[in-house]
Amino acid sequence: MAAKEKTLEDLFHETLKDIYYAEKKILRTLPKLAKGAHSKELKAAFEKHADETEGQVERLEKVFELIDKAPRGKTCPAIDGLAEEGAEVLQEFKTSDALDAGLLAGAQAVEHYEISRYGTLIAWAEQLGMREAASLLRETLAEEKKTDAALTRLAESSLNRMAA
Amino acid sequence: MAAKEKTLEDLFHETLKDIYYAEKKILRTLPKLAKGAHSKELKAAFEKHADETEGQVERLEKVFELIDKAPRGKTCPAIDGLAEEGAEVLQEFKTSDALDAGLLAGAQAVEHYEISRYGTLIAWAEQLGMREAASLLRETLAEEKKTDAALTRLAESSLNRMAA
Repeated sequence: MAAKEKTLEDLFHETLKDIYYAEKKILRTLPKLAKGAHSKELKAAFEKHADETEGQVERLEKVFELIDKAPRGKTCPAIDGLAEEGAEVLQEFKTSDALDAGLLAGAQAVEHYEISRYGTLIAWAEQLGMREAASLLRETLAEEKKTDAALTRLAESSLNRMAA
Repeated sequence: MAAKEKTLEDLFHETLKDIYYAEKKILRTLPKLAKGAHSKELKAAFEKHADETEGQVERLEKVFELIDKAPRGKTCPAIDGLAEEGAEVLQEFKTSDALDAGLLAGAQAVEHYEISRYGTLIAWAEQLGMREAASLLRETLAEEKKTDAALTRLAESSLNRMAA
């Protein structure tokens, strides 16, 4: 069989595998961040986002079903890198007053990565006429944006606490 | 000498090294993307952003000077991961009509990473009373946001071209 030319459908599928891997990695990382964070508010935020992430993984599984593919991840070096940076902060700033500020910055970088990926996937799903998939992905994008805004508020109050 | 407790200043310095490494990596990666991209518009956008990135590197060097540190990068696994993903798309979709859409998605993920990092650095610089540093970082943040918007427009027209 000759190699078939790759299409936008293939790109959509590859990127879906990438974010599926990323969400599962985030799901495994959040409990460690919740355990390490200093403030109660930040612990609670990480725990809440872990619950939300479970629902986001399920939505991705529905999208795989819609395109008739098995839900399978593909190593996403970007999220691995982001997780590694988080682990570094957790270790190097363990006993520092600045720990939460560092963890929050890392979590915001992750949210930005996801916001960018979901935005792309939605544009491609629309282009491919996949309305139901686009609608599922939009639900998750809205959640990620809300999480990012909540993290920004926490980052501000964490800085104010340090200044006090 | 006993280990000193790490402070927000240290976190600022670490993150500055991270984004300095990232900008330099981007500077090395953009010519490859410009070479690989299919459309003239995307090639031009990558070339323009390479010029801009040079100025951003210089601004970071001024910030290092302001905090009396040597401009030195620190491996940023997140940007390495993003660059790796870009290289994969470049190879796997080399002859595909969807190549530019894939490169654009990767470039937008990089912009989002930078937007998040600069946003954080600005908040910390303000907290630390470093007005001049904050102002330099804000100049770059404004450029990154403009670049992100330009990439979004290019992504839309690239999808429209594929549909035509």
